[in-house]
Parts: sequence; C-alpha cells; structure tokens
Amino acid sequence: MRVDGRAFNEMRKVEMVLDYIKTAEGSVYISVGDTRVICTATVEDKVPPFMRGTGKGWVTAEYAMLPRATQTRTIRESSKGKVGGRTMEIQRLIGRALRSVVDLEQLGERTLWMDCDVIQADGGTRTASITGAFVAMVDALYKMVKAGTLPRLPVKDFLAATSVGIVGTQPCLDLCYEEDSSAHVDMNVVMTGSGKYVEVQGTGEEAPFTPEELHSLLDLAKLGTQQLIAYQREVLGEAAALIGGNAVENTTD
Amino acid sequence: MRVDGRAFNEMRKVEMVLDYIKTAEGSVYISVGDTRVICTATVEDKVPPFMRGTGKGWVTAEYAMLPRATQTRTIRESSKGKVGGRTMEIQRLIGRALRSVVDLEQLGERTLWMDCDVIQADGGTRTASITGAFVAMVDALYKMVKAGTLPRLPVKDFLAATSVGIVGTQPCLDLCYEEDSSAHVDMNVVMTGSGKYVEVQGTGEEAPFTPEELHSLLDLAKLGTQQLIAYQREVLGEAAALIGGNAVENTTD
Amino acid sequence: MRVDGRAFNEMRKVEMVLDYIKTAEGSVYISVGDTRVICTATVEDKVPPFMRGTGKGWVTAEYAMLPRATQTRTIRESSKGKVGGRTMEIQRLIGRALRSVVDLEQLGERTLWMDCDVIQADGGTRTASITGAFVAMVDALYKMVKAGTLPRLPVKDFLAATSVGIVGTQPCLDLCYEEDSSAHVDMNVVMTGSGKYVEVQGTGEEAPFTPEELHSLLDLAKLGTQQLIAYQREVLGEAAALIGGNAVENTTD
Amino acid sequence: MRVDGRAFNEMRKVEMVLDYIKTAEGSVYISVGDTRVICTATVEDKVPPFMRGTGKGWVTAEYAMLPRATQTRTIRESSKGKVGGRTMEIQRLIGRALRSVVDLEQLGERTLWMDCDVIQADGGTRTASITGAFVAMVDALYKMVKAGTLPRLPVKDFLAATSVGIVGTQPCLDLCYEEDSSAHVDMNVVMTGSGKYVEVQGTGEEAPFTPEELHSLLDLAKLGTQQLIAYQREVLGEAAALIGGNAVENTTD
Amino acid sequence: MRVDGRAFNEMRKVEMVLDYIKTAEGSVYISVGDTRVICTATVEDKVPPFMRGTGKGWVTAEYAMLPRATQTRTIRESSKGKVGGRTMEIQRLIGRALRSVVDLEQLGERTLWMDCDVIQADGGTRTASITGAFVAMVDALYKMVKAGTLPRLPVKDFLAATSVGIVGTQPCLDLCYEEDSSAHVDMNVVMTGSGKYVEVQGTGEEAPFTPEELHSLLDLAKLGTQQLIAYQREVLGEAAALIGGNAVENTTD
Amino acid sequence: MRVDGRAFNEMRKVEMVLDYIKTAEGSVYISVGDTRVICTATVEDKVPPFMRGTGKGWVTAEYAMLPRATQTRTIRESSKGKVGGRTMEIQRLIGRALRSVVDLEQLGERTLWMDCDVIQADGGTRTASITGAFVAMVDALYKMVKAGTLPRLPVKDFLAATSVGIVGTQPCLDLCYEEDSSAHVDMNVVMTGSGKYVEVQGTGEEAPFTPEELHSLLDLAKLGTQQLIAYQREVLGEAAALIGGNAVENTTD
Repeated sequence: MRVDGRAFNEMRKVEMVLDYIKTAEGSVYISVGDTRVICTATVEDKVPPFMRGTGKGWVTAEYAMLPRATQTRTIRESSKGKVGGRTMEIQRLIGRALRSVVDLEQLGERTLWMDCDVIQADGGTRTASITGAFVAMVDALYKMVKAGTLPRLPVKDFLAATSVGIVGTQPCLDLCYEEDSSAHVDMNVVMTGSGKYVEVQGTGEEAPFTPEELHSLLDLAKLGTQQLIAYQREVLGEAAALIGGNAVENTTD
Repeated sequence: MRVDGRAFNEMRKVEMVLDYIKTAEGSVYISVGDTRVICTATVEDKVPPFMRGTGKGWVTAEYAMLPRATQTRTIRESSKGKVGGRTMEIQRLIGRALRSVVDLEQLGERTLWMDCDVIQADGGTRTASITGAFVAMVDALYKMVKAGTLPRLPVKDFLAATSVGIVGTQPCLDLCYEEDSSAHVDMNVVMTGSGKYVEVQGTGEEAPFTPEELHSLLDLAKLGTQQLIAYQREVLGEAAALIGGNAVENTTD
Repeated sequence: MRVDGRAFNEMRKVEMVLDYIKTAEGSVYISVGDTRVICTATVEDKVPPFMRGTGKGWVTAEYAMLPRATQTRTIRESSKGKVGGRTMEIQRLIGRALRSVVDLEQLGERTLWMDCDVIQADGGTRTASITGAFVAMVDALYKMVKAGTLPRLPVKDFLAATSVGIVGTQPCLDLCYEEDSSAHVDMNVVMTGSGKYVEVQGTGEEAPFTPEELHSLLDLAKLGTQQLIAYQREVLGEAAALIGGNAVENTTD
Repeated sequence: MRVDGRAFNEMRKVEMVLDYIKTAEGSVYISVGDTRVICTATVEDKVPPFMRGTGKGWVTAEYAMLPRATQTRTIRESSKGKVGGRTMEIQRLIGRALRSVVDLEQLGERTLWMDCDVIQADGGTRTASITGAFVAMVDALYKMVKAGTLPRLPVKDFLAATSVGIVGTQPCLDLCYEEDSSAHVDMNVVMTGSGKYVEVQGTGEEAPFTPEELHSLLDLAKLGTQQLIAYQREVLGEAAALIGGNAVENTTD
Repeated sequence: MRVDGRAFNEMRKVEMVLDYIKTAEGSVYISVGDTRVICTATVEDKVPPFMRGTGKGWVTAEYAMLPRATQTRTIRESSKGKVGGRTMEIQRLIGRALRSVVDLEQLGERTLWMDCDVIQADGGTRTASITGAFVAMVDALYKMVKAGTLPRLPVKDFLAATSVGIVGTQPCLDLCYEEDSSAHVDMNVVMTGSGKYVEVQGTGEEAPFTPEELHSLLDLAKLGTQQLIAYQREVLGEAAALIGGNAVENTTD
Repeated sequence: MRVDGRAFNEMRKVEMVLDYIKTAEGSVYISVGDTRVICTATVEDKVPPFMRGTGKGWVTAEYAMLPRATQTRTIRESSKGKVGGRTMEIQRLIGRALRSVVDLEQLGERTLWMDCDVIQADGGTRTASITGAFVAMVDALYKMVKAGTLPRLPVKDFLAATSVGIVGTQPCLDLCYEEDSSAHVDMNVVMTGSGKYVEVQGTGEEAPFTPEELHSLLDLAKLGTQQLIAYQREVLGEAAALIGGNAVENTTD
C-alpha cells in the first residue's frame, strides 16, 4: 500500500483545462494529483540563428516554479540572477521531447516557445509539464491549421511522460513527492502514442539497479503514459484526430 | 462610454479565491477583469540583517509575470539574469504598502514574504497584487493567531489599491490595458479602510495635470478601493473582524 | 523650528554652475544645501529600438551616487554587478519627468542621455537631480539650436522638483537627510513652470495620511518648485527665453 | 563499417596516466580515441550546508572544456558570465554517478571535488570524464587510506561509462563526434563492476526507439563499460584490490 | 613643441582641494590639467578575510569614471553588470601603490577604502588618482592621529605618480589624452619621496623600446613625481611633517 | 643558493611540444619547471568592431587556470560568474605583448585568439603563457603561409617573457612560486629577439626599489628571455627563419 493509498500501478487523478490563459496562442492547465502546471504555447515567426535558412522550425521550452509551489519557499531564479542546473536540465528535456513528435519541416521557419510554470509541486513536475505542454502545443498548432496558416497539423504522434521508481523494493508508477524523496531508483520516461521511447532517464544514485528492475519500471511507464494519452485525446477533441499526419480535409470524409 | 462598456466610475468584475495554493501559509487567487494574480504568503522566523535585534518584523514582496501573461511573450527575468526596473519598482511598492498596515512590533522578529505572480495581465497588475496580497497576508497571520503563535492579528487596517487615469479628457476608475496604454495621466492609489492614503503615485508623462484633475482622480480611487475592501471583508470571513486591533478573545464575547 | 533652523516653508540654499564638465554637450553642477549633484547631457543621433522609425526622439536618465556621497560608504553597484531597485526607480522617474516637457517630435530621432551623479548626499538627491538635469538638458539643446542643428528649442515648459514631508506633525518643504529619515510621510513632486503636476509620489509607509495633509504638502511643493524655476531661469540666461516654444528668431525681435 | 574503421561493438583506444597533475590530491589523464580529459580530485574537510551534521560526506563534480577542445573555438563560460545548461547537466550527471559507488558514511564529513577538464573533444566527453574521474577519486582516497586518514577505501564498486547509439540503423558502441552528430538515438550508460545500472540516459529526439533497440544498446554498453573497468583495474594497481569493501589489512594476507 | 605648448619636461597645472567631500573621513579634489578626480578615504574597523587575525591593516582602492568624463559617453559598469579589465587593473595598481608606503602593522586591523572617481578625463587618470588618493589617505589618518585613535601616522614616505611616454621620438612628461593616444611607448611610474620606485609599468605595444629610451623616461618621471610631492606637502600642511615616522609629540618640539 | 638549488641567474628546465592539440590551428604545450601551460591559436576571419574597415588584424588573448593547477583548489571563474581582476590583467598583458611583434596590416582583417590554459602552476604562469603563445601563434600563421593564405609571415621579431625579482636581497631570474611569494620586488619583463623591451612591469609593494636594483633585474631578464628565444627557434624549425620579414621564397635561396 502506497503513502496515499494507491496501488503500485495506479496513477494519481489527472485534470486538464484547455485554453486556460487567454493571452496565449495555446494553453492548458494540468494537474496530476497535487502537482499543478500552467503550460502555454507561443508561436514566433522566426527561428534561432542555428536554424536559419534551413526551412525548418524549432520547439523550445522554459520551465519554472513559483516560489511557493514548494513546501518551503524557493528563491526566484531571477533574484539569484541565474537559472539553476536542475531547471536547465528540465527545460532541455521538455524541448527535446516535444521536438521528437513535431515535423519541423512542416512547421516551417517558426519557433514554438513552450512555457511550463509549476504553481504547486508534489512530484513529477517535469513529466506533467511534458504531458501538458504537448496539449498546449497541439492547441496552438490546430488553431493555425484552422486559420489556414498551416496546411496540416505538423505533429507525428501523441506524447506523454510519467515518472516511475523503486520505493523500498517495489517498482511504482507516478511517484508523489514523498515517494520520490525516498525512492532508491528514479526514472522519467517519455513515450509516444505508438509505444516508442523518446526519453529514458533512470538514475540509481542511491542504489544501482538490475536489468530486471529496469524492465519492470519500463512496463509501468508504458501503462501510465498510455492512460495520459487517453486523457489528451479527450481534451483535444477534434484536433486529436489530426495527429499522425491526417490532413484536415481527410477528417471530413 | 469606455472600451469595455463600463461607466467612468465602474470597476471591473472582481473575484478572490482564498487558500488557492496548498503549499503556502496563506494564499489567494485574485482576478480583476482579465487580470489574474496568484498571491502567496510565506512566514519566515527571522528578519533581514538591518532589522535584527529590533524586536520588530518585516514584510517584503516579490512580483513577477508569467511569460505569457501578456499578449506577446515577455522574456523571463531569470533568463535575462536580472530583475528589471519596472519589477523592482512594483515589488518595492507592494512591500511598502503592506508594511503600512502591519504592526511590526506585534509581528515580532519574523519576515513575511509576499509573492505576487501574474498569470494573465490586462492592466492594473500592481494594484491587484496589493489588494490580493493583503488578503493572503491576513490569511497567513490569522492562522498563526488561531494556532496561538501570535496573540492578536498584527494588522491595523484594511488595505486596497486601484489605478485611475485620464483617458482622453475623462477621469476613469480601474483602467484595463487598452485604456492604460492611451491614458495621458496614470495614477495608482493605495488606501486604507479608514480612507487614508498610503501611496499616491501619479504620473503625467504624456501631459502634466492640473490640481482639479488630481482631485477627480483621488475621488475615483477612494470609490474603487472601498469596494475592493468590501470584497476583502467578505472573503476573509471571521479574520476580517480582527483587523484593526481586536483581539481574538474579544471577538467571542 | 527645523533641525537646521529653517522655517517649515523654507528651502535650503541652492547653487547651479553651468558647463561644469567640459567633455559633455551640456552640464550643470547643482547643490541644494549639502546635496551636490553633477548632471550631464549627452546627445546621441539614434533612438532605442522601440522608437525607431517613429520620427520622435527619446530622453533617458541614469543616476548614481559616489560611494562616499553618504555618511557611511555605499558599495558600488558595478561591484555588486547589478543596479539596485532604488536606483532604477529614481532613474525611471528622472527620465519620465524630463520627457514630459520635451517635444519629442521636434527633437527628432535622437536620444538625450541625462547622467545625474551625486557626489555628496543630504536628502533630496532625486529632486535635485531632476532640477539640475533639466538645466543640463536645456544647455545641450540650446547649443544645438545655436549651431543650427535644431530649428527651435524642443522644450515646452520649465521643470523642477522638490521633496516635502510630514516631520512630526508639521508639513515641511525640502527635507534634509535627518528630516527625511524621521518623516512619517514623504512626497516627491515634479512640477512645470505653469504649475501643473508631472509626478506626485507620496508614501505614508510610517503613517497613512489624510486628504488635508496631502493638500498642505502639495502647496509647499508648489512654493519650492517655483523658486527653483526662478534659479533655473537665471542660470540659463538667454536659453530660458526660448522655453515654451519661442523660436530663436523671435528672441532677437 | 564505421567512419573510423571500427566494428560496431569495438571501443576506441583508451589510455590513462595516473598522477598527471602534481598539485592535486588525485589525478588522471584519460584519452578515449581523440577525446582527452584531465581529471583531478580535491579533498575538502567540510561538506555543503545541506549535509552538515549528518556525519556523511559528499562528492561533487565540475566539467569544462578548453576553448579549443573543439573544432571551432567555444567561448569560455567565464567570459559569458554563466555556466550553460549542457555543462550543468553533465556535471550533475558525473557527481551523481560517482556518489552511487562511494560509501558516504565511511568518507565522513568531507567533500570530494572532482574536476573534469576536456582538453580535446571527439565525442563521449562526459562518459570519458566519469570513467577518468572514478580513477582520480580512488587515487586520492587510496592515498588517504595509506596515510591512515581513512580506515578503509570508501568505494563500493568500480564505475565506468560509455556512449552507445543508433547510427543509420546500426546500434554502435562508443560513438566518436562524427557518429554522434548523425546518430538517431543517443544513449549514455553508467555501470558498476557488478553489472548494475547507475544511469541510463537515452534520447531519441531524431527518432523514437523501440524496446528491442533499447536492449541492443544496453548490451553494447555493458560490453564497453566492462572493458573500461579492466583498464581502470590495471592503472589503479593495488588500490583496485580495496574496492568493494576490502580493508587494507586484508590485502596483505 | 607639444600639442598644448608645454616643454617636453613640463607638467600640467596641478590643483588640490583638501576636504572636498564632507561625508568622507578624508578627501581631496585633484586636477592635473583637465583631468579631474575626486578621491575619498573610508576607514573601516575590520580587514578582509585573508588578513584577519594578523594584527595588520589593509588598503584597497576603487576607481571609476563618470559616464561623461570622456569625450564620448562611456556606458556605466553598473549597467553592464561587470567591472571591466582596465578598471580592475587600475584599482589593483592604486591599492598596491598606496600599501607600499603604509605601515600596515601600525594601522592595526583596519581597512582603508580609497575611492577615486574621475569626473573629467584628459589622460593620466590613474596617476592623478594615486597622487590624490595619497593625500586623501593621509588626511583621514592624520585626523585619527589627532583624535588619539592612532598613536602616530602610519605612513612611511610620500607617494606620487605620473605618466611619461615617447611621442614621435621625444620622451615627454605627463601626457595629456591627445599625446597618450599617439604615443609609441607609454609608462606609468609611481615613486616615493625618497626617490625609490614603487611601480614601473612601461608598455611598447606600438613600438618596443631600447634601454636608453627607458632611462630617459625614468628620469622624466622622477622630475614629475618630485614636483607633485612638493604640492602634496603644501596642501597637507602639518600632517606632512608626520610622514616618515615622526610621532605627533616630536613635531611640537 | 635558491630554494630549488639553482644559481641566481639560472632558469628552470623548459620544454615545448608543438601541435599538442589537434583541434586547434596552432598549439604548443610549454613547461617551465613545474609550470605547465597549453597554448592554442584560433584564426577568425573577422575583427572586433573597433578595427572593422581598417584593413588591419587583431590579436587577443584569454588566460585561465584549471581549478587544481594550484596547491589548493581555485574556484572556477565560470562558477563565480565573472572573470577576476588578476585574470583580466594577465590576458590584457598577453594580448598587448603579442601584438607588439605582429604586423597587423600584413595579417589583414583577421583575429588571432590566443588561449593560454595553465594546467599546473608553480610561478611565472603569465610569462610562460606569453612565451608559449608566441610559438602557437607562429605555428598557426606559418600554416597559413604554407597554404598560401598569407604571402609572408606577419611576425616582426621573436618574443619571450620571464619573471625576475629580489628574494631577500638577491636579484634572481625566473622565480618559482615559493620564491615569488617571498620576493620583495617582483618584475615581469617581455623582450624581443633584438633585445628591446615590450613590457616592463615591476612592483615593489613590499619594498620600493632603487634604480640600481632595477638595472640588475633588467639584466637578468635579458639573459632569461634570450635563452627562451633560443628554445623557441629550435621548436619552430623552418618557421623560425621567416620571422622578421623574410619571405618564404627567400628561404629557399
């Protein structure tokens, strides 16, 4: 029995609210248990210097936590004057994960800025950010398709992420903060709708893990990400039908 | 007739949700029209160096906007590596305003960190922050009173803020972003429940203003802040009764 | 009786030395009591990005204090690696105030950089900076008029600033540092030659103030700024006659 | 056939020179093909604030590249004034990996600072750094054991790292820079002498990968890390015998 | 004939005003031709960490230029967020030079902060700073002697600095900015009252120089520094008599 | 007798390895006693803004030490977020020294970036850096001559540097760290092959020095730099023959 009464292979309650922020091109509010994140998408009509002239677009992410997202107040990175290592690692992960399912050529020379701001943290903020940012990104791109700016949705597959870990000796799905703090092995897995891996990041700082343990964790991650993708499909509505290369025209057949 | 159909002396719709963030000692979500701010209070059991040994407490504020609170994305101050002048000016204003109604001796050697994070901006973010932060602060202090940590609520009066300005030639109450952008005169007023001024910050960069115009604006500000204080009273419930020096014991008489 | 023997409505001794710095396009040394500031004007033939192509000019200000302008040494902001909140607030105020009396269209696509460096501080450094910077700015612009670079002086009105405050229960004009430290209410007022307000910044952190107190303070501020403008008129000599839209040609009539 | 003529499961030439830097407590020069890294160990008799009073030690790492380690000059992070995201991610990885095999209680309240400075880069700099830093760390700790400062070597197991990836459709071991640039899947694996995983970091930004591909890569990684550990054993000489909990006394039996 | 009509071995006009800044413990305004510098001394009753417990004091210097000290405006180092290499080099030089004539043991565990702020620059700002800072330092220390805080003046000798250089083929004394810009060889020399060298910093970036040229320059530097020391002696009045170890008591014999 | 047994006029053992770093256009590893430096040259086909359009090139240098180059670990400047004063002073010195022997017109609009990274420090790191960087620079330029990119080697003379100082009362050549720490006078001298001075930087912070002592030190410096230049000539081989304006064609006569 886990600290919050869940079974080892049970996710926390998930909620997603589309178009949560009026000022953004795409947005979603996602909660996974007590972890709550605001994800927004910004579309910019240019790309970073290293992509110019390639005809391809780019997806980048920024991640932050409000100071009181945590049990004790965290000093703002703007006050410290620099972005910390953990933050950079997470935003590089989110950007990389999202790019893996975007057809950058179809996107054209545009940059998608994905902002993930954690307003309350209870473990799994990076995976909730990826799962939510995917929805906010599709939201923004779908509006461009409807407006005729894009001929088709440049999204190749669904994408969701979850954390898994070994608590005591038990592999568990979707760790809350208390579990995460005491886990010996901690792994974040990003998977596509077709069941492929985009990111596998497992660390056994407290205790190196065996190949068998690795397999158990990967199985749990698959279970969790597939459930998250089902939620995404629901909240995205008709936009969901265009993922994977279906053109707008075809969906009306 | 104003851009959003309001009368010149009419405020936008106000909403406040108490205890919006579970991880913080006090918190409120405040919306004033489309301006939405999350305010949290953190209680720290020590004071900054310049206050040590005085027996008095301190109240300080930090203010920030999510990148997509605005119509076009604003670069994070953490990415720029420094806090901008506008942000510093606003957080100094919020801190000063809140301190004016706190009895720092009764607070004791503690620091209240008030965080105001704008998640959507449509004008008046600093005044909404002050109005909301006051509620979050009372929320946190009232819990300390109830827990016996503080003998009485160290809050001397209510406090609320609004913006006023001259749009065209018409003095108006509670400017939205579109009005604010075109106003010739822009003024932020912070007032107490007893109708005294805590801050009067008027600027006529576009057009210097006459003493008569100043008076019209101050009258509107009084109207607006008194309405906001009525909302605060409502959302604070029984904590409201302790503001102004009433001890907990007395309220049960 | 005040700490330095002045009446409540009496300013400190004021001195202004025009063209104090040979290397600058315009400059003045101003002392108000023991507060001493060097103000210089720099003319740059381009504007910041947000003004490009508008045909209009810009005025911006920077403010600093030498480390030993104060009774105890203040660490340089260059050593700290960042400009503090108080400094930013002051330089934003100076820039805004000066812009209110400059005809930015007549200035053309040029930037005026106004530097105010306090070499000795005894209260009222920001208001002395505004009063001095106005003179240095007119000095630089008048030279451009004389050189034929500008057809007329793009300055609409005189501009001066003073501080007022409530010391004990007495509203007083032009606070020195000792008074400022103990004042309950502190207000900086920037006014034009025609008696309009450009900035009204009053703060009652120590004690909120009533509408009546506000009026007394504003009356004192008017008295002080009009005296300062008389000094400015004197030191500026023939340039003074061109303020408010009089063309050079007319002055020779 | 690979770009440099190796078989898919063949590592590049490895060289390690112990005690390469006289001024450091422990040091090694490691080359893996044309990737060359100087690793040093510093022993400090205190721990970071979050570890104080726990009786346990800490291991932390810093990683950098000389400007001309790369084919085109890279700007120094000291000149940019901040440490980049990639650098932070790598030094967090190195530190975490090393801590997994150190008995922090036996180490006592000391910090090991592991510096990994890449003097020439040709792919796999982070994995070469981990492999080399392990040797430099054991070097420093072994000297402490010999000097009687530590009763036994607080190192639980060997540790080495390698990169693997899918180049074209071929899983390959130990990618050089040219291969790494064109790989669809890129994975860094850190393993112990007993064949357990410490870190598995696989990313399929270019192309998500299947469970089967994951297994092939993990097999190659095991092959490579075991060869590296054989080299470590050789260069460490008698210190190698103390890894895994053997006391100094026992080795002389 | 030089650009400003001086002979090759002639210094510019020198002026020194003692106690120029009321708020500082010691201060001087020095002008050497059109180069004008405000030098202040601050006495702090503690020393930097590396000197603690040694019983000795420390002397450190900071140097800056106002933005319009120069013909074109120089961006503030506080705005750039870092102190430049030239500034650091100069302040290290000033501190080192002053320390060479201070008896740090007699000073006791105190730090002298010497601030040199150039308000107008026309070449030789670093040497004018050293010459002026010496006077401001003696000014502050002499007050401590008179107040009984120090038993005797902890200053071993006079100290002054000048620049020399080869303009065309002519060695010249005390270069102004125009000469400095075109000089092939540029040398700053700091000397004591007894004619010893404290700093010799010659650079022939434009044209390496011969031993004979070096000697001519050193001769000119001696001439200039001895004249500057005569000025210092005059402005320091009775404090001058205590330099070199004479106790206060003795001077009244 | 000196601390390491050398005579007062004896240099430490010198070693230079050309082309030490494959990735750089020119490189050398230099050791002078236990001081070891990696010097690389980068050729960039543009110049800094202040040189654009002049037809001339530029030479700039960066200097750093690995954290464990020193007996106790030095914090990385990238971690501190700024480059220290000592580092800036040294890299300005190296750049200036190298430029003095380069014909910047013949170089054309190119920048040479010279990186000097100290991997082990035992005194004299800046002079070893200059001596080594000269070789790495010639190495890179000679390759450009051989490739036909440059018509002739734009190097006017040899260049080497050494430190001298007064240890006790004895002037000594090439101080090691232990001597340097206790020297009363410390001087760095950069000289050309033809025996001219490029930089003379002597400081007598501990004890001002006489003209006679200055001459003794300069004589020792000449002895040392001429020996270093003999080494440079040897390691540079045929490139050495082109220094001083000899064209490639001529060398085959």
